Amino acid sequence: KMLRSAAPLLLRAAPRFPAHFSASLRFFPLHRRCSRGSVDGKREIARRNSNRSIASSSVGMASNNSPDAAPPTHSSTVTLSSGETIQISGAPTLSPSEFRNAIDSALFKQWLKNMQGSSGILTKEQMSLKQVHIQGVDMFGRGVGFLKFKADVFDNETGKKVPGIVFSRGQSVAVLIILESGGEDYVVLTEQVRVPVGRLILELPAGMLDDDGNDIVGTAIREVEEETGISLHVADMVNLTAFLDPSTGCRIFPSPGGCDEEISLFLYRGHVKQETITALHGKEMGLRDHGELIKVHVAPYRTLWHMTVDAKALAAIALYEMAQREGLLASSSG
Amino acid sequence: KMLRSAAPLLLRAAPRFPAHFSASLRFFPLHRRCSRGSVDGKREIARRNSNRSIASSSVGMASNNSPDAAPPTHSSTVTLSSGETIQISGAPTLSPSEFRNAIDSALFKQWLKNMQGSSGILTKEQMSLKQVHIQGVDMFGRGVGFLKFKADVFDNETGKKVPGIVFSRGQSVAVLIILESGGEDYVVLTEQVRVPVGRLILELPAGMLDDDGNDIVGTAIREVEEETGISLHVADMVNLTAFLDPSTGCRIFPSPGGCDEEISLFLYRGHVKQETITALHGKEMGLRDHGELIKVHVAPYRTLWHMTVDAKALAAIALYEMAQREGLLASSSG
Repeated sequence: KMLRSAAPLLLRAAPRFPAHFSASLRFFPLHRRCSRGSVDGKREIARRNSNRSIASSSVGMASNNSPDAAPPTHSSTVTLSSGETIQISGAPTLSPSEFRNAIDSALFKQWLKNMQGSSGILTKEQMSLKQVHIQGVDMFGRGVGFLKFKADVFDNETGKKVPGIVFSRGQSVAVLIILESGGEDYVVLTEQVRVPVGRLILELPAGMLDDDGNDIVGTAIREVEEETGISLHVADMVNLTAFLDPSTGCRIFPSPGGCDEEISLFLYRGHVKQETITALHGKEMGLRDHGELIKVHVAPYRTLWHMTVDAKALAAIALYEMAQREGLLASSSG
Repeated sequence: KMLRSAAPLLLRAAPRFPAHFSASLRFFPLHRRCSRGSVDGKREIARRNSNRSIASSSVGMASNNSPDAAPPTHSSTVTLSSGETIQISGAPTLSPSEFRNAIDSALFKQWLKNMQGSSGILTKEQMSLKQVHIQGVDMFGRGVGFLKFKADVFDNETGKKVPGIVFSRGQSVAVLIILESGGEDYVVLTEQVRVPVGRLILELPAGMLDDDGNDIVGTAIREVEEETGISLHVADMVNLTAFLDPSTGCRIFPSPGGCDEEISLFLYRGHVKQETITALHGKEMGLRDHGELIKVHVAPYRTLWHMTVDAKALAAIALYEMAQREGLLASSSG
């Protein structure tokens, strides 16, 4: 799901799945959230308390010696926690409000925080950030959906620039839903139109976090409900990415060479009747008025690994299999 | 690795790893390429023979009622295989040559082909492509590195637009290298600065394919050599993504909601002496003059799943583990 909007909250009031099914999922949780599940909460608190890196920011119009075809017409600055002031320029195609929205966006602020965080590339002082050029802003309604910018980051030892083009889309979540029925484990997948790859593909139910990025598990549950009609409870969700070493930040990066996206992966396991599997398969979901048309697919878990091209589905399989092998999950009763 | 350049070919002439190590890797392959390894070759031939979709394309200057802040100043058309003509506009920040390069790029042509391919979203006639707006072009040397555009794709039934912003970076490859030594399986990882995520992260050796996209396994071998100094032979590479169902296209999508990237994953397994493991670990590699500084890390395979945030590493674990479980790989003698 690509929309960041408040609309889902309204739509959720109208149940889109028979109540008995929600109930059957609610009453048979196989396990509770693992002990490491609190990592995200701690990270979020740390995140909110570390907003000091952006000390000043002002918009103006200025000429600039950019190597681009046309000179940028927007200019601003941000001050890093080191005290250094960084020039921010913007492409002239951006309206003043788009440029302002870009600099003020949670996406851009989060990137600056990541750069200066305890494992950030500016922290060890081997690299320097000299300037940032905002190349494009894609508004989703009133919020910044995607941001694209070029950061001039230099290796202090060689003076050479390191690759610095960033497609920014922020945090997302995905859920591996395993439903045991009649001795077989099934997974719930979504099929939707994905213009970037030009195809319909089978994926884990997933979605982007809102700007504040605080409610990861809540977003996961909301996206599953919107995309599949299945109601899950917070207490039954296992954060698979919380099994990663805490030093990693406990989220996975799908494309770290070009994109800032980070994904939290969750696991839900439950028992359902065969009718539920049948009712789910082929169900049409999604906010069609927002351009989302989603078909639900249900497939045996054992076939998932060779029927999906979704990297987050494969990553979830790896975490689930390895966590099971190491005895970190309650064993399935299936 | 983010650079698309011919430079690696020159650099490969100077061996950057002791010859005895290359030799030790060459002489102990555990298996040969699986029978499904030819899928990629067939796809490539199909790809070269299906270039007819772009029948006409001309650059001009025109005004346009774009909803963007400034009207695009570039205009062109492409004709789809259906006979429909699609308007292509470009942001005024693009130089005429950048706009031309964008439309002529392998990235854009491949996207048009994907849209119209046998599993393409235009093929079933439920969706229509109306126009494309080229928002940005990032040149890597003389070639198009990244492309960003917005495609207006409509659901024919509802008339609503589907999410259509595309960050285009094309095909890439990554290799899971498992080296058995003294009864332990080790993996070879690279650590490099990743500006988009603001951090140094551990990843599988990986890289982007050249524009023609024809030499997938060759690119994988070249990237491994550049990033780790290890020389692998084509015959010892197992295409893990070739285990995917042929209907999927046999490549994984790391971020299909925003990015066209597709990754082929390979496996190499071999035996080495303990000194080789020691020599590899902490080795510095990369084309530092091109802004790449890569540190090689070697870690036990059994710890990989919780020490990496690289989705392609986790996806490779899933494919490797499941292929092994189903007896599709020769068993390791370690």
